[in-house]
Amino acid sequence: MYVVDTYDVIVIGAGHAGCEAALASARLGARTLMATLNLDNIALMPCNPAVGGPGKSHLVREIDALGGQMGINTDLTCLQMRMLNTGKGPAVYSLRAQSDKKLYQMTMTKTLENQDHLDVKQLMITDLLTKDGKVTGVQTELGEVYGASCVILATGTYLKGKIIIGECTYSGGPIGQRSAEDLSGSLIKAGLKLMRFKTGTPARVDRRTLRTDEMAVQEGDTDGHAFSFLSERKNRNKECCWLTFTNEKTHKIIRDNLDRAPMCNGIIQGIGPRYCPSIESKIVRFADKKRHQLFIEPEGQSTEEMYVQGMSTSMPIDVQYEFLRTIPGLEDVKIMRPGYAIEYDCLDPLQLTPSLETKKVSGLFSAGQSNGTSGYEEAAAQGLIAGINAARKVQGKNPFILTRSEAYIGVLIDDLVTKGTQEPYRMMTSRSEYRLVLRQDNADLRLTQKGYDIGLVSQERYDVFCAKKKAIADGIAALRSISITPSKAMAEKLDALGTAPVHTGITAYELLRRQDLSYDKLCQTFDLPELDADVKEEIEIMIKYEGYIGRQMEQVEKMNRLEQKLMPDDIVYADIDTLSGEARQKLDEIRPRSLGQASRISGVSPADITALLIYLEQYQREGGHVSK
Amino acid sequence: MYVVDTYDVIVIGAGHAGCEAALASARLGARTLMATLNLDNIALMPCNPAVGGPGKSHLVREIDALGGQMGINTDLTCLQMRMLNTGKGPAVYSLRAQSDKKLYQMTMTKTLENQDHLDVKQLMITDLLTKDGKVTGVQTELGEVYGASCVILATGTYLKGKIIIGECTYSGGPIGQRSAEDLSGSLIKAGLKLMRFKTGTPARVDRRTLRTDEMAVQEGDTDGHAFSFLSERKNRNKECCWLTFTNEKTHKIIRDNLDRAPMCNGIIQGIGPRYCPSIESKIVRFADKKRHQLFIEPEGQSTEEMYVQGMSTSMPIDVQYEFLRTIPGLEDVKIMRPGYAIEYDCLDPLQLTPSLETKKVSGLFSAGQSNGTSGYEEAAAQGLIAGINAARKVQGKNPFILTRSEAYIGVLIDDLVTKGTQEPYRMMTSRSEYRLVLRQDNADLRLTQKGYDIGLVSQERYDVFCAKKKAIADGIAALRSISITPSKAMAEKLDALGTAPVHTGITAYELLRRQDLSYDKLCQTFDLPELDADVKEEIEIMIKYEGYIGRQMEQVEKMNRLEQKLMPDDIVYADIDTLSGEARQKLDEIRPRSLGQASRISGVSPADITALLIYLEQYQREGGHVSK
Repeated sequence: MYVVDTYDVIVIGAGHAGCEAALASARLGARTLMATLNLDNIALMPCNPAVGGPGKSHLVREIDALGGQMGINTDLTCLQMRMLNTGKGPAVYSLRAQSDKKLYQMTMTKTLENQDHLDVKQLMITDLLTKDGKVTGVQTELGEVYGASCVILATGTYLKGKIIIGECTYSGGPIGQRSAEDLSGSLIKAGLKLMRFKTGTPARVDRRTLRTDEMAVQEGDTDGHAFSFLSERKNRNKECCWLTFTNEKTHKIIRDNLDRAPMCNGIIQGIGPRYCPSIESKIVRFADKKRHQLFIEPEGQSTEEMYVQGMSTSMPIDVQYEFLRTIPGLEDVKIMRPGYAIEYDCLDPLQLTPSLETKKVSGLFSAGQSNGTSGYEEAAAQGLIAGINAARKVQGKNPFILTRSEAYIGVLIDDLVTKGTQEPYRMMTSRSEYRLVLRQDNADLRLTQKGYDIGLVSQERYDVFCAKKKAIADGIAALRSISITPSKAMAEKLDALGTAPVHTGITAYELLRRQDLSYDKLCQTFDLPELDADVKEEIEIMIKYEGYIGRQMEQVEKMNRLEQKLMPDDIVYADIDTLSGEARQKLDEIRPRSLGQASRISGVSPADITALLIYLEQYQREGGHVSK
Repeated sequence: MYVVDTYDVIVIGAGHAGCEAALASARLGARTLMATLNLDNIALMPCNPAVGGPGKSHLVREIDALGGQMGINTDLTCLQMRMLNTGKGPAVYSLRAQSDKKLYQMTMTKTLENQDHLDVKQLMITDLLTKDGKVTGVQTELGEVYGASCVILATGTYLKGKIIIGECTYSGGPIGQRSAEDLSGSLIKAGLKLMRFKTGTPARVDRRTLRTDEMAVQEGDTDGHAFSFLSERKNRNKECCWLTFTNEKTHKIIRDNLDRAPMCNGIIQGIGPRYCPSIESKIVRFADKKRHQLFIEPEGQSTEEMYVQGMSTSMPIDVQYEFLRTIPGLEDVKIMRPGYAIEYDCLDPLQLTPSLETKKVSGLFSAGQSNGTSGYEEAAAQGLIAGINAARKVQGKNPFILTRSEAYIGVLIDDLVTKGTQEPYRMMTSRSEYRLVLRQDNADLRLTQKGYDIGLVSQERYDVFCAKKKAIADGIAALRSISITPSKAMAEKLDALGTAPVHTGITAYELLRRQDLSYDKLCQTFDLPELDADVKEEIEIMIKYEGYIGRQMEQVEKMNRLEQKLMPDDIVYADIDTLSGEARQKLDEIRPRSLGQASRISGVSPADITALLIYLEQYQREGGHVSK
């Protein structure tokens, strides 16, 4: 045993959770160590070469609004951007970027290694060190000890990682890395409950062996995009993707070989992601579907490897070849890396508080796949929150918690710590009850002030945010100041804008509610200030959806009343005999932070909530003591 | 078993040997597969971030002259270049580049993946397949079979690789990669003899923790350099290095901990490189040395990792910290990756012919560390030759063999296959008996025609070579055409050039022999053509060292007479009773290609060579039959 150094916070893992956790902690001034099994694999994207998409883009924008790195890094290193769901409402608009994997890694590595208060080291952590239920540090395979008052698990798929390809299995992390074989045991010894999950990826194929004329080209959007509120909105397209489909032949090959599918024949024990299923799962679960959509995506500009999005598999390699070659465009395909499944240990997230600290071990936080989630963005979002809260704990500050009505990050963490998860959890816009409020476009308006208040948002970002807020206010004031009165001249003006005349006097603000008008159009005719694209977008959404948003805000207010009723730390649920037996047990296990959280626990009924409400009123009246 | 594909040549490994082997084979038109354990580790530099240096720069230039890739890639991705040994003669001038490791990898990966006739795949090869002593292909851990008539081993340190750091050991390749655990057994089964070697690297440290004001800065040369004959000679400096030294305190810590040094306490069984020893070996072997020189070198522009050149070690991590922190500039150093040793299996190179094919298994070639060498450049050189010869074998052509007087590559391979090696073999200029002829500057003049003749040198390269040859001839002709006759005017001209007057009529060619004159100086006064820097350099060396070079060429001629006497394939040494017993045994084991090679076998005396010479004359006279 050799004590090398002592930190405030140690982050175990350098994937997307670990990167944000380490940066957030260090930026808040905590002396931070990021430990990774391999310095060459920082910010690795072992799965698809993409950031964003439905639900996920919202997380990236929220991470960015709070001062995180994922958005900035994605903008710097992407190959293509597209806005998805533009045919639907603004609540579900979702930006998605194809990423250059190697560049993403190199750029993130440079950011981390140059962050003040942060050290980055290649270490195999074998033991979590604790004393009296509190974290004291970690130990490595070389016998090094690093002291710390907080440790953040961001272990991804590395805890007892096991690679599975057909009949072949071996211990390892993604792409031939070492797995962490010892740390799981140390966590169990500390009293934590582990689950076994699995995920997987498709084969990577040689770009030169594609018949691109048999597939549909997928170009990026020509209008400018950016994930970060700090980045310029511009055309970032360098590469295209290709769209193709499976067919009956593909499906038959898979069905004929299901006895050799590790997912079906018992080799895979871990539970896979429902919303990123393997192709063999899709064939089994959606037996009547005639075809499945596939995207062939570049992995970067320094390689010919292409990712076959939609074809995750752990089937034997001969089956992989056989089914891939039935797909239009892939008839001659050569596999460069096989698809594989990976099983790994993770925490049951019901063991966490909303600050992402474990209830069992004070100072132990966890983020990302080690909490049972799936996805780079979900991982990064948790990493950010765990990093913030570990630093704040060291500094004696209250936890930083986002509610379900403030952010998708709040939804994500509340779902995890309140409902737990039986399978790798993926974010979707449908998981939010307030999705018209939680848009990707307004993440900065929702969160940047909060990020600034806790010290994570830089002055530069804050200034950009303030300027945008002011521009929105100015634009709205200008719209409100312009009167549109019925007249022949006005009718002609409006007709020129392609919209109907007005019959009563209204303001330009009210006029903009019309679906056939935009701020730009009004600008042509009325004396309105020139505004940036993001400001105009925001003003239009605020005005056009005002009614819906207003109604959703009323629900938020109502819910907030429950969220603001915090449960006393010393509450003894077993003693509240007005609660059902199941509610008593679940409440004691999860120990919700608020009445709001309590109301979302499976097994806690509205009657139980009423009982708790009455109990809490009595508790307050009696100054923290409720006579039985 | 699933036959995926059939190739002409399969290269196992994607390090520096594998890359050149695969490119050479494919460029010669052989359908080639390069198999690597990890596509992300193609062209990895697991040891120092540098290419070239004494002996090694000669190899890089020779690889380049023959149409290889290392020089081009180094020029494209280097951080700094320096010409070493400029205080000595041109025979030992040695270019050395600091490399950006990640960029080097990315650039080589792009080259390989876009090479016609070459496929690149991530495969764990577990078995060499043979039939009747001939290679038929390989099998992977997934049960895939790839057929091939030639296979090139370029397995580096991966065959049963074992990492050692103090008391901690585990199976693995460099930087946490998987080791190849099964292939060794398959090679032994095929009748090959394996050795166990080891190598090692120092810790990588955080640039931010260096006290650079306590070290001497090492800038690159400001004059232009390039490895490749195709690249522009220009200033490629982007980063600097730092020079510092160990001291008595450092040495005491190492001496005090020798009982914990795996090299001393029996944990390490493999034999390490004599000329790249670990710091603990240096302390033991050079006990009276007061200090050892260290260079602190950047690993690339995307990382803060710095390489501590000269401090290779497998000491326990606490000892590594302790001794590093005694070194000026490293007092506060933080280790990002520990130093480690790695043990691995390799072939005894006496089992190879000069074409790098194994004598036991027809079609099996081997190159690089798997032949017992050390160094990226040594590996690349062998890879090139193995790739050429595997392709030529497939195409039914004679082996391509360079002699000791043609190239350092010839010296390297002749040493390996004639003398074998008891430790990782490193190239040095002192290994060549003709080093005034084998200069780095004239590698193209020595080899490009040969590379062109076998089809490896591109037309572009050949045209550059022809133009240079012509420019040299023109320059020399011009020098010869100018008469320098004694006169007052001439004496004044020469005085202006800083040189003495002439007393008899000579040509400018003869005048240039003077050490105080250069082609550039003569240009100022005499009517000479403007020439490129490399052409002027060549002309000056040819003229100034004409006498020495001439004498060395006479030795070469003499030796060539022995080299050209090829040994008959069917010779039965046991039957030649004029040979000593030892010579009979050694000759039968090594089966030299020529009388020249025979003369260099340890245990074969000049008397034995005379006996062989007599035997060969008789053999030829009697048409291949020598009566006993």
